[in-house]
Amino acid sequence: MPSIVRSENRANTEYRQIKITRNCNIWAEGSVLIEFGRTKVLCTATVGNKLPPFIKEQKLNHGWLTAEYNMLPRATNTRNSREGRKGSVSGRTMEIQRLIGRALRNAVDLEKMPEVVITIDCDVIQADGGTRTTAINGACIALYDACQYLVKNNLVAENPFKEFVAAISLGINDEEVLVDLDYAEDSNIGADCNLVMSESAKLIEFQLSAEKQSFTKATLDRVYDLGQESIAKIVTEQKRSLGIE
Amino acid sequence: MPSIVRSENRANTEYRQIKITRNCNIWAEGSVLIEFGRTKVLCTATVGNKLPPFIKEQKLNHGWLTAEYNMLPRATNTRNSREGRKGSVSGRTMEIQRLIGRALRNAVDLEKMPEVVITIDCDVIQADGGTRTTAINGACIALYDACQYLVKNNLVAENPFKEFVAAISLGINDEEVLVDLDYAEDSNIGADCNLVMSESAKLIEFQLSAEKQSFTKATLDRVYDLGQESIAKIVTEQKRSLGIE
Amino acid sequence: MPSIVRSENRANTEYRQIKITRNCNIWAEGSVLIEFGRTKVLCTATVGNKLPPFIKEQKLNHGWLTAEYNMLPRATNTRNSREGRKGSVSGRTMEIQRLIGRALRNAVDLEKMPEVVITIDCDVIQADGGTRTTAINGACIALYDACQYLVKNNLVAENPFKEFVAAISLGINDEEVLVDLDYAEDSNIGADCNLVMSESAKLIEFQLSAEKQSFTKATLDRVYDLGQESIAKIVTEQKRSLGIE
Amino acid sequence: MPSIVRSENRANTEYRQIKITRNCNIWAEGSVLIEFGRTKVLCTATVGNKLPPFIKEQKLNHGWLTAEYNMLPRATNTRNSREGRKGSVSGRTMEIQRLIGRALRNAVDLEKMPEVVITIDCDVIQADGGTRTTAINGACIALYDACQYLVKNNLVAENPFKEFVAAISLGINDEEVLVDLDYAEDSNIGADCNLVMSESAKLIEFQLSAEKQSFTKATLDRVYDLGQESIAKIVTEQKRSLGIE
Amino acid sequence: MPSIVRSENRANTEYRQIKITRNCNIWAEGSVLIEFGRTKVLCTATVGNKLPPFIKEQKLNHGWLTAEYNMLPRATNTRNSREGRKGSVSGRTMEIQRLIGRALRNAVDLEKMPEVVITIDCDVIQADGGTRTTAINGACIALYDACQYLVKNNLVAENPFKEFVAAISLGINDEEVLVDLDYAEDSNIGADCNLVMSESAKLIEFQLSAEKQSFTKATLDRVYDLGQESIAKIVTEQKRSLGIE
Amino acid sequence: MPSIVRSENRANTEYRQIKITRNCNIWAEGSVLIEFGRTKVLCTATVGNKLPPFIKEQKLNHGWLTAEYNMLPRATNTRNSREGRKGSVSGRTMEIQRLIGRALRNAVDLEKMPEVVITIDCDVIQADGGTRTTAINGACIALYDACQYLVKNNLVAENPFKEFVAAISLGINDEEVLVDLDYAEDSNIGADCNLVMSESAKLIEFQLSAEKQSFTKATLDRVYDLGQESIAKIVTEQKRSLGIE
Repeated sequence: MPSIVRSENRANTEYRQIKITRNCNIWAEGSVLIEFGRTKVLCTATVGNKLPPFIKEQKLNHGWLTAEYNMLPRATNTRNSREGRKGSVSGRTMEIQRLIGRALRNAVDLEKMPEVVITIDCDVIQADGGTRTTAINGACIALYDACQYLVKNNLVAENPFKEFVAAISLGINDEEVLVDLDYAEDSNIGADCNLVMSESAKLIEFQLSAEKQSFTKATLDRVYDLGQESIAKIVTEQKRSLGIE
Repeated sequence: MPSIVRSENRANTEYRQIKITRNCNIWAEGSVLIEFGRTKVLCTATVGNKLPPFIKEQKLNHGWLTAEYNMLPRATNTRNSREGRKGSVSGRTMEIQRLIGRALRNAVDLEKMPEVVITIDCDVIQADGGTRTTAINGACIALYDACQYLVKNNLVAENPFKEFVAAISLGINDEEVLVDLDYAEDSNIGADCNLVMSESAKLIEFQLSAEKQSFTKATLDRVYDLGQESIAKIVTEQKRSLGIE
Repeated sequence: MPSIVRSENRANTEYRQIKITRNCNIWAEGSVLIEFGRTKVLCTATVGNKLPPFIKEQKLNHGWLTAEYNMLPRATNTRNSREGRKGSVSGRTMEIQRLIGRALRNAVDLEKMPEVVITIDCDVIQADGGTRTTAINGACIALYDACQYLVKNNLVAENPFKEFVAAISLGINDEEVLVDLDYAEDSNIGADCNLVMSESAKLIEFQLSAEKQSFTKATLDRVYDLGQESIAKIVTEQKRSLGIE
Repeated sequence: MPSIVRSENRANTEYRQIKITRNCNIWAEGSVLIEFGRTKVLCTATVGNKLPPFIKEQKLNHGWLTAEYNMLPRATNTRNSREGRKGSVSGRTMEIQRLIGRALRNAVDLEKMPEVVITIDCDVIQADGGTRTTAINGACIALYDACQYLVKNNLVAENPFKEFVAAISLGINDEEVLVDLDYAEDSNIGADCNLVMSESAKLIEFQLSAEKQSFTKATLDRVYDLGQESIAKIVTEQKRSLGIE
Repeated sequence: MPSIVRSENRANTEYRQIKITRNCNIWAEGSVLIEFGRTKVLCTATVGNKLPPFIKEQKLNHGWLTAEYNMLPRATNTRNSREGRKGSVSGRTMEIQRLIGRALRNAVDLEKMPEVVITIDCDVIQADGGTRTTAINGACIALYDACQYLVKNNLVAENPFKEFVAAISLGINDEEVLVDLDYAEDSNIGADCNLVMSESAKLIEFQLSAEKQSFTKATLDRVYDLGQESIAKIVTEQKRSLGIE
Repeated sequence: MPSIVRSENRANTEYRQIKITRNCNIWAEGSVLIEFGRTKVLCTATVGNKLPPFIKEQKLNHGWLTAEYNMLPRATNTRNSREGRKGSVSGRTMEIQRLIGRALRNAVDLEKMPEVVITIDCDVIQADGGTRTTAINGACIALYDACQYLVKNNLVAENPFKEFVAAISLGINDEEVLVDLDYAEDSNIGADCNLVMSESAKLIEFQLSAEKQSFTKATLDRVYDLGQESIAKIVTEQKRSLGIE
């Protein structure tokens, strides 16, 4: 495969320029507009109290966090039909919103938020690759703010926020590992990966899928190392946006 | 009914502050982020060629324009479920998107755009009253840009854009007529109205509905006059955003 | 546009021949088969007690009235698929049944019928234009009978029926305003309008939509006057069918 | 079980009073309003040309006949939700409309109507037992008229109508066999049966189902004989309504 | 019609080789893999307690039994789409599962199993004709075991199992009556029939449908006699598999 | 976390007993019943020619392979509703069938099977953990047989089967890594992983998800090594079942 020319003159190890706009929505308990290059995702965190049935049925003593992901029809180069209007949501959307939910449940201690349900909405305003990792990165900030809201309004005894969670996409082109692919890069890549880790460098989710190319273990290690490095930097950006570090 | 205190210290005859951001999307043939006070709607116009079946079946010789309207789940004070994910779209959404489509079909000459379908997407990012009229006002600008695109790319022989179309909501509180209601105002109003007119002051659509209060014809005339006045001003704003007046 | 030849040799200001058959159904609390010319609508009013969720959630102290509208497949010149069997109900049907519901909620005092839900069903047996206005006119009579049923069965302390509500369609052909369009007339019309008013001449709903032609305010006034005149006569017919005037 | 008191002072072997109103719809190629006692079904036959896919796929050289059955919401004592609006059609409705279709395909020679599809719509206006058999009896008359239409309009080379098809319901109460049950009778019956036969006394469909009571073969024979007798009389009524006997 | 050559060198009056494998599933309260020739159906009986709404609404004092039927996509010669994934279940599937439910409700005394719901699942692993009757025959054995489970676990005061229920398909080819048709035989048959009877020879369900050929009463009697004879033998097989006779 | 007691007295590094039954279905071009301990999955491979739309639209010159996954209602300890009958398929099912499809597309050269679509159906007859990996392992054998069918029937110029693909699940319990979890083991595990590799030890898919516990990189390496080792053994079993090694 030929070498890939990167957008924004980046090195293979660099992610795109990040822009974080907090409180972009007047109604939500937490809200962030996050941009990775030209990818823009609007993330809101809503505080509610409608627990999913399994919590009541199993008499569990903790709250819940769930996520929904959606693309606006013209977030992409060609217009996509609105999902659900013709029946059901696509497998891709389901996979992504389940990933976002699992990832962010690692950022909070659900037992410290009994009777509370936080709903994360990630709406992709403009897509240029990496929408699911961008969504996780923005939503974690909105989640932080929603946890502050819980504390200020005495809806919890203790702040349930545990630690930051961040995500990065990586691609493999023959021997090269590339961080944070945009759409053009992703289209030419042999395989791609999404990595989610916590602030304390614990591995939360690692998804690596190859339809066009297979992988060696050495490449896998390189992917892991570069991903970890990027995630540490992204956590710093998350905290900076909140003015807490 | 008690008199209504207006947001932004407005007179009853004033609409809220308008902000128009063109080309807010890198992919669409026309795109506008429009704000009326705190109501924000993202409008895109997509150029396509999939004609609706009735045009082929009836062997008609013109193109088409259609519209979709959607609210993000947390566009409102309390979170709404995503429409369609539980089956079908609500009656309210259907009514609104049909209204937007009818309104904007008056802005173009469909016979000058054979084989072309323009799809208008209006996604409400934040709602504070008047989302359907705000959507029409923004979408008409995106439509203007999409028509320019048609001309520049030789997809039409002649520019199909005929004239600007704008819309305004009005409310009636006993004897008072109020222009451009925000959400708080709308909740306390006796009846509400949506008016769509063209740049040349032709009446396109007039919807007046009263569940709480009935109307006299004198009030109807007042509604009509104030609406027409506002629409003329909005058209000026539309043109200014395009730098054509 | 050429002048329109009217069915039944009517003047532009005349509506078609009306026929009202009360108690056409042995099960319903109120039932009417109403005909405007060749348009036939079967209207039933059902007394129930399943309040919509918002009434309980908001702890409101009143009952409710809701409406459903449907066309039999062969009510029209060519057969239409049964709505809903392929998924969801069309936008047109939703708009119409919401209109019927809003209109008839003006005929009753919901606070006088707490814990009561009246469901209006309007099934178009044969369509020849004006089905939504015909439905409102017939359903109001069925509603009157259902209110009598409430009184006789001690389901309410006081009769909730307030006043009659009637509706008429109007069309505009260049300068002419035509009352009560049949299907052939409607197909050639520049714009059409539906007007709903109460017995006391209050304006309840006014919908005017122009895809083919725009309107002047003078025409709007003419539409309003002719509509009001027809509605007054229709209310007389409604009462006559009930033997109350 | 106690003996059943019959409506209309009928003997066990008598069906209810029949009323047949042909041409009750101005649009359909065949239409009949048929009444068995208080059960009223509106039947239309529509001539079309959209063959079902299997005919083209299997390169068959014949036309098709299909049927749909529906109850108006207040056809029954308590209101039923409109089928399909909440998703799919009930098993009961599917069974009935498949039965009607199979029954009436025996009345025509499909090979004499290539390229033709006849759609039978049976809408139950008022239900009081026996709606499926009433529907078959009425629809066969509408089908006869639709076949006449095919001939008159040269859509077929030869009339595809073969012979009349009629149906009757029967019930068993201990030892008694009862013809044509109304709703009250049917509710107290041990088992019920639907029989469809042709004018030439051929057995087309025989469905006998017992949830409450089992049957002996002797009873089965009695059911068969009484059913055959009634069907012969109903065919006479069908023909009389058409003025052909 | 030409005479039909039978599979397995059977006489017209013989059914195919039966194989019954009980306890083929580790989780279900009753489970059977049943084979009639090459037709294989996996039947499970699940004990639950979610009563259908009508039992509570009508304050009935008995339990319930319901059934679901499904074909695996490649149970047949050509692959079928999975039902339900594109919306709703087919009319054929609905008819069959309703039949299975009605049939098996005759095998138990519902009043002896208050608060209990037994769900029968019949999944066709491989189809070669007669899947609905094979399903009934296998499911009745699973039901027997589920009733034993109810007794052993003190969920009922008395065993609700009343008597065995079995089913057989029959076909008519001109003058011949054939027992237990496989797929190839069924495809060439003039009409087909399904018969359900109880161990005590009571007739439970008799469905006879003819699209290609009509029937005389003599043939009907022959069908009934041969069916009864086969069912008696199948009940013996059911009991043998349970080791109770 | 306490140490986990393994089923079948296995070491942590051992998978459960495997049983493979080829040609378990008479209709499919390839079919396998595969068992890992008590988990049983029926896999069929169907040869067809309905290419997905994107292949035609993009004028691609290769065939396709797609997969569907389903659980029978009583495959599990408590009965699950049939998916799809209440609307849409669950996110879990979608994820699994997309995984199976991606995995097996690595086993074939799609360019060697133009105009061919292979549909893999994996129906879980009995579930006891590891259903998705068991499905991949069985389906790959059915796929091998379907490729043989393509060759024998001259539907391809060259055999498209490239190499075997196998999968294994792994779990992490504190420091321990366990191979091939059954249901009881999986319920108590801190995190779980699914690994898919090819016969030539190329990494195809690696999914690691932790809701209860986070991971270190050292554990990740251990997971990878044990997984690779198991997969090599499973490939040997796949080949043995085919008699090709």
